[in-house]
Amino acid sequence: MKHVVCDKQSNNTNIRLTLPVVCFVWQIAMIILFGVFIRYDKESNAHWVETKAHDNITSDIENDFYFRYPSFQDVHVMIFVGFGFLMTFLKRYSFGAVGFNFLIASFGLQWALLMQGWFHSLDPQTGKIFIGVESLINADFCVAGCLIAYGAVLGKVSPVQLLVMTLFGVTLFAVEEYIILNLLHARDAGGSMVIHTFGGYYGLAISRVLYRPNLHQSKRMQGSVYHSDTFAMIGTLFLWMFWPSFNSAITDHGDGQHRAVINTYLCLASTVLTTVAISSLSQKTGKLDMVHIQNSTLAGGVALGTAAEFMISPYGALIVGFFCGIISTMGYIFISKTLKIQDTCGIHNLHAMPGVIGGIVGAITAAAASESVYGKQGLINTFDFTGDFKDRTVLTQGGYQAAGMCVSIVFGVVGGAIVGSILKLPIWGDPADENCFDDEVYWELPDEEEEHQESIPPILEYNNHMIHKQQDL
Amino acid sequence: MKHVVCDKQSNNTNIRLTLPVVCFVWQIAMIILFGVFIRYDKESNAHWVETKAHDNITSDIENDFYFRYPSFQDVHVMIFVGFGFLMTFLKRYSFGAVGFNFLIASFGLQWALLMQGWFHSLDPQTGKIFIGVESLINADFCVAGCLIAYGAVLGKVSPVQLLVMTLFGVTLFAVEEYIILNLLHARDAGGSMVIHTFGGYYGLAISRVLYRPNLHQSKRMQGSVYHSDTFAMIGTLFLWMFWPSFNSAITDHGDGQHRAVINTYLCLASTVLTTVAISSLSQKTGKLDMVHIQNSTLAGGVALGTAAEFMISPYGALIVGFFCGIISTMGYIFISKTLKIQDTCGIHNLHAMPGVIGGIVGAITAAAASESVYGKQGLINTFDFTGDFKDRTVLTQGGYQAAGMCVSIVFGVVGGAIVGSILKLPIWGDPADENCFDDEVYWELPDEEEEHQESIPPILEYNNHMIHKQQDL
Amino acid sequence: MKHVVCDKQSNNTNIRLTLPVVCFVWQIAMIILFGVFIRYDKESNAHWVETKAHDNITSDIENDFYFRYPSFQDVHVMIFVGFGFLMTFLKRYSFGAVGFNFLIASFGLQWALLMQGWFHSLDPQTGKIFIGVESLINADFCVAGCLIAYGAVLGKVSPVQLLVMTLFGVTLFAVEEYIILNLLHARDAGGSMVIHTFGGYYGLAISRVLYRPNLHQSKRMQGSVYHSDTFAMIGTLFLWMFWPSFNSAITDHGDGQHRAVINTYLCLASTVLTTVAISSLSQKTGKLDMVHIQNSTLAGGVALGTAAEFMISPYGALIVGFFCGIISTMGYIFISKTLKIQDTCGIHNLHAMPGVIGGIVGAITAAAASESVYGKQGLINTFDFTGDFKDRTVLTQGGYQAAGMCVSIVFGVVGGAIVGSILKLPIWGDPADENCFDDEVYWELPDEEEEHQESIPPILEYNNHMIHKQQDL
Repeated sequence: MKHVVCDKQSNNTNIRLTLPVVCFVWQIAMIILFGVFIRYDKESNAHWVETKAHDNITSDIENDFYFRYPSFQDVHVMIFVGFGFLMTFLKRYSFGAVGFNFLIASFGLQWALLMQGWFHSLDPQTGKIFIGVESLINADFCVAGCLIAYGAVLGKVSPVQLLVMTLFGVTLFAVEEYIILNLLHARDAGGSMVIHTFGGYYGLAISRVLYRPNLHQSKRMQGSVYHSDTFAMIGTLFLWMFWPSFNSAITDHGDGQHRAVINTYLCLASTVLTTVAISSLSQKTGKLDMVHIQNSTLAGGVALGTAAEFMISPYGALIVGFFCGIISTMGYIFISKTLKIQDTCGIHNLHAMPGVIGGIVGAITAAAASESVYGKQGLINTFDFTGDFKDRTVLTQGGYQAAGMCVSIVFGVVGGAIVGSILKLPIWGDPADENCFDDEVYWELPDEEEEHQESIPPILEYNNHMIHKQQDL
Repeated sequence: MKHVVCDKQSNNTNIRLTLPVVCFVWQIAMIILFGVFIRYDKESNAHWVETKAHDNITSDIENDFYFRYPSFQDVHVMIFVGFGFLMTFLKRYSFGAVGFNFLIASFGLQWALLMQGWFHSLDPQTGKIFIGVESLINADFCVAGCLIAYGAVLGKVSPVQLLVMTLFGVTLFAVEEYIILNLLHARDAGGSMVIHTFGGYYGLAISRVLYRPNLHQSKRMQGSVYHSDTFAMIGTLFLWMFWPSFNSAITDHGDGQHRAVINTYLCLASTVLTTVAISSLSQKTGKLDMVHIQNSTLAGGVALGTAAEFMISPYGALIVGFFCGIISTMGYIFISKTLKIQDTCGIHNLHAMPGVIGGIVGAITAAAASESVYGKQGLINTFDFTGDFKDRTVLTQGGYQAAGMCVSIVFGVVGGAIVGSILKLPIWGDPADENCFDDEVYWELPDEEEEHQESIPPILEYNNHMIHKQQDL
Repeated sequence: MKHVVCDKQSNNTNIRLTLPVVCFVWQIAMIILFGVFIRYDKESNAHWVETKAHDNITSDIENDFYFRYPSFQDVHVMIFVGFGFLMTFLKRYSFGAVGFNFLIASFGLQWALLMQGWFHSLDPQTGKIFIGVESLINADFCVAGCLIAYGAVLGKVSPVQLLVMTLFGVTLFAVEEYIILNLLHARDAGGSMVIHTFGGYYGLAISRVLYRPNLHQSKRMQGSVYHSDTFAMIGTLFLWMFWPSFNSAITDHGDGQHRAVINTYLCLASTVLTTVAISSLSQKTGKLDMVHIQNSTLAGGVALGTAAEFMISPYGALIVGFFCGIISTMGYIFISKTLKIQDTCGIHNLHAMPGVIGGIVGAITAAAASESVYGKQGLINTFDFTGDFKDRTVLTQGGYQAAGMCVSIVFGVVGGAIVGSILKLPIWGDPADENCFDDEVYWELPDEEEEHQESIPPILEYNNHMIHKQQDL
C-alpha cells in the first residue's frame, strides 16, 4: 500500500508556470478585447431614460432585466453549483470538481460574450457588441457546453488542459450556434442540440482521443463515499429544480417563458419516476443506485431543451420524460461499461443521448405544429417566421431542426477529435494513470493526520501507521 | 456487534417488483389522464397574443408568470432541497432522505395537478383543467403536506409505502383544501391549516398506527454525526430563507405578496432568538442543541401561514414568532419523549402544533380585521368578500377560519389512521426493526472498505477488522 | 493527548443564563419598539388599491416588490447560506459557523430595521417608520457588516459576545451609513465602504483588542478537513453567484439594476482567473490553495460595490476584478501571517482591503463621470443630483465619495476598538485559548463513538481508545 502511495509515476504535473501564464495572458487579452468591442446595451445604459421616452415605454419594469433576471440567476446557480457539485461524487476529487468547474466557467463566459457577440450581435455601424442580461444568459449557456465536456474527462486532465478545452469549446460553440440558430434558423431555446448534444459529443470525442489503457491503476479512487454522494445530490437537485428556468430563460416574453417552464417541470417529474423504476429493476433486490438518481433524473430537462417552448402539451412533456428516464438509466447500466470512452460522469447518458432525443423531439413537434393549435400569430412568434423566414412552413422548419441536430453532432465529434489531439501533447501537466481522480495532484490538501503522530505511544505506532494508510486511500 | 450486522431480521425488503411496477403504472396513468384533462391556460398558451389584444393588456410583463415565477422557484427549492436536506441529519439515512423525498415529490406533484384541477379549476364547458404557474405552486404546496408526513416515518418505511402514502395524501389534501378554501371560504395562503396541520397529523397518525415496539433495536442508527448535521442545516436554511416566498407565493398581486413577505421575514427572525434561548436553557451548561436549531427556527413560518397576508402588523408577526420558537423548542424537549408516536423528525413540534397555532392566529386576526385598518376595498380584496361571500362579516370569517382548522385536523387524523392501516399490510417491503434508519436496505452503498482489505498484513487483520466494524456503525 | 482533551482550562463558558436572557430581553424590546414605530409602507399596505388609484398606477406589477424581490431573496441567501457556509471550513466549527451566523443575522436584522428607519425614513408627521421590501434588503445589508466582523473572531468568542458585537455593530453601521449616504450624499449601492470597509475594520479592530497570545494552544483545531472545505465552497459559490444581486438590489430601477448586474458579473469572473494564477504561483508545484479559492474569488464583488451602478464600462469591471484577485490572494499569502490580528477568515484580504479599493474606484469613476457618457438625465439619476445636491459637480462628488471612504474606516477602527474593550470583560463566557475553534464548547455534539464501546473485546480496548482519541482531535 505504502508502495503505491509513495512511488508515484513520473508525469510532470507541475503547472506553476503554465497555469498562471494562461490565466494572466488570457485575462489581459479579455480586458483589451472588451475595451475594443463590448458596451452596455440600451437597456443597461444610463441613456435608458432617453430610450424610454423615445420608445414610449411607460414603466421601468418593461426593461428586459425584469423579464429575465430571475431566470438568469437560476441558470447561474446551475452552472456553478449545479454542474460543480454534481461532479463531487468521487471520493477524493471534490476540490477539482467544484474548483475547476468554477475556473473554466469564469474563463469561458468572458470569451463567450465576445464570440457570441461577434457572431450574433455585432453592430455593423459601430463595430461594437452591446450586452444586456440576455447576453449573460447566453454566455452561461455557452459555458455549459464546456462543463458538460468536463464531465467526460473529470479527474484525468490538468486545469491547463481544461482551459484549452474551454477556449476551443466556446469557439466551436459560437460557430455551430450561429449555423444552427441563424443560418438554419432552427429553434433551440434550452439547447438540446446547441448545448447538450454538442457538449456531450465534444467531451466524448476528447475523452476517446485521450483514452488511457492503464486507467485501472487509479481504480481505488474511482468510487464515491457516502458523503461525496450526498454532496453530489446538491448538484443534482439544483440542476433539476432550476431546469425550467434554463429552458425558459431566453424564450419569448409572456407565454413563451410560461409554457417552457410548465413543460420542463412536468417532463422532469416524469423522468424521476422512470429512472427510479429502471434503477430498481437493475439490482437483484431492487436497491437504488445513486449514480442513476444523480444523473438520469435530469435527462428529461435535456431532452426538452428544443421543444420546451413549443405547444407540445403537458402530456407530451410527460411522455418525453418517461422515455428519457428509461433510456438514460439503461445507458448507465449497459452502455457505459461497453463503450471504450472512459466517460467519468457518464455524459453520454445524461447529455449526448438525451440531447439527440431532444433534437428529434423538436424536429417532430415543429413539423407537426399547426395554426389551429398555435394561432396564426402564435405560430409566427414561436418559430420566428419573420424577415427572410416569413414564408417558411412548419414542415420545412422540422427539416431544418433535424439538420441543426446533425450540425451539432458533427461539430462535437470533429471538434472534440481535433482538440483531443492537441491535448495529447505531453506539455499540459496531466496526471499519471495511477494518480487520476485524486485532488492531491493539483490541490494543497488539509493534512488530516498531522497531530495524531505526536501523541501515539511507540508500541502502537506501526499499527496506527497502517490505519492512516488505510484512511489515505 | 458482528452478530447484529450479519443476522439481519428476515423481513423481505426486496422491492424489485413493486417499486418499478408502481412507478410505471402510475406514470402511464398520469400520461393518459393529462392527455384527457390538462391543457395550458390562456397565459401559457401560444394564443396569448390574441388574449392580450382581447383583454387590452399592454405589456407581456402583466402575464401572471412574472408575478409568481420567482416565488415558485423558491418554493420549488424548499420542496426538493429544503425538505430533502432537512432530513439528512441521521448518520446513515441521507440517501433515503434526499432520494425518497425527490421521488415522492415528483410523483405527488403530477397527481396534485389533477386532483386540485378537478376540485378547483375544472372548466365546466370544456371539461379541461387549464394550468399555469400558479397551478405549479399549488402542486408543490400539496406535495409539501406529504413530505411533512414523511418526516414522521423517516427511516421506518419502504419507498413503496411512501408512494402509497403520497397517493392517498394528495387525494385527501385536495378534498380538505376544497372544503376549507372553497366551501368554508377560509383564507390560508401559506397553508398553516391546509398544508402543515393536515400534513403533520396525517404523518403522526400513520406513524402511530405503524408503531414499532422494538424500534430500540436500531437505536445505533438513530443519531446524527457531525457532517450529517451540517448537511441538515442546508435544508433548514433554504426553508427558512425562502419561507417568505412560500407564504406569499399565491397571495394577491401587489400589496398581498409584499405584506406576506414582510410578515414572514420578521416572524422567522423572532423565532430564531427564542429557539436559541430555550435550547440553551435546556442544557446544564447552556449548550445549544442542533435538533432545535434545525427545526424550531422554522416554526414561525408555519404559524404565519394563514395570517401572513393579513394586516397583522410587523410587531404582531414578531409576537407570533416569539411564542412559536418557545413552544416548538419545548415540544422537542418535553413532548417528543413522552408521546408514543416515534416521530423521527419531530413534525409534531415543527408542523402540527405550529400549524394549529397558525390556524388560531388566522382566525383571530381575521375576526379582528377592520375597515379602518384595511380600507374598504382592501378588506374585500384580502378576504375575497366577493360573489357568494360578499356579505360575510369579519367575525363570521373568523368562525369559518376556525372551522377550517378543525377540518384539517380531522382529515389528517382520520385519513392518517386509515392509510396507516393500509400500510400495515405485510406486502410493502418495509425494513425490520433493527434495520431502520439504514440506507443499506434500499440503496447500493459505496463500498468504502474494499481496497483496504487487499493491503493489510495478516497480523493486523483482526485488529483492522474491528476498526472497520466500528466505522460501520 | 488525553491530558489535553480532559484538563480543559477553567474559563467559565457556561452561557445558560446570559444567552437566554439576552435573547429574551432583546426580542421583547424589539416587539415593543416595532409596536411603537414600524408600519407597512404604502406598497405593502392593504390600502395599496387606493394608492394605485390615487397615483394613477395602472398595474400591480409596478409595485416595488416586483422590482426588488428576486434580488432580495438572493441577498438573503448570501447572508444566511453564503456567509454561514463560507465559515464552515474549520474542521470542527461548522455548527458555530452556520448556527451563530444564523443567530446574529436574525438578531441584527430586527435592530437594523429600527436603526436604519430612525436615521433614514422616520416620517416626521406620524413618527413612524414605513417598511417595504427595500427596507428588508437594507436590513440584510446592515447585518452583512456584522457577519463580516464575525469572520475575524470566528471560533474565539462566545455567542453572547457575538450578540453584543452585533448590537453595537448595527448601531454604528446605521450612523456611518447616515453620514456617508445622507450627509455626504455619497453613492454606495453595493456597500464597498458602508458594508465591507466598515465591517472589515470593525472586525479587525475587535480581533486586535481580543488578541490571544496563547492561541497556538488550539492550533490542532485551526485547520480544515476535506469535507469542511467542500462545505465552505457552498458558501463561496452562493456568495459569488448572487453578488450581482447584492450590488444591484437597491440601485435605480431599470438601467441602474441592469448595469450593476453586468458589471459585477464580469468583475467577479475576472477575479477568479487572477486568484487562481496567484494561488498557483505561490506553491512550489503550482498546486492551488482552497483558502484562496474560497475567499479571494469574491474580492471583485466587494471592490465593485460602490461603482457597480456607474458607467464603469465592461472592460473597467474586468480591470477591477483583475487587480482584486491579485491583491486579495497576495494578502492571504503575505499579510495574514505578519499582522498581529488573528483574523480567522482573513477578512482583511476579502473585505477590508477590497472595500477600500472599492471606495477609491468609486471616487475615481464618479469624478470621471461625464454627460456624454451618462446623458444629462442619466447623470442626475445615477448620482441623484436632486434637491439639495442638484448643483453638485462630478468632481465634488468624487471628493465626497473619498470622504465617505474615510468615515467608514474611522467608524470601523474606532468603533471596533471600543466594542473590543467591552468584549474583553471577563463576563461573556468566551472559550479558553486551548478550546478555541471547537464546537464542543457551545454545542451538544453527536456522540459518534457511543456504541463502539459496547462491542470491543477487552484486549483491544486500549488500542481502540487511542484511535478514538485521535479521531477526537
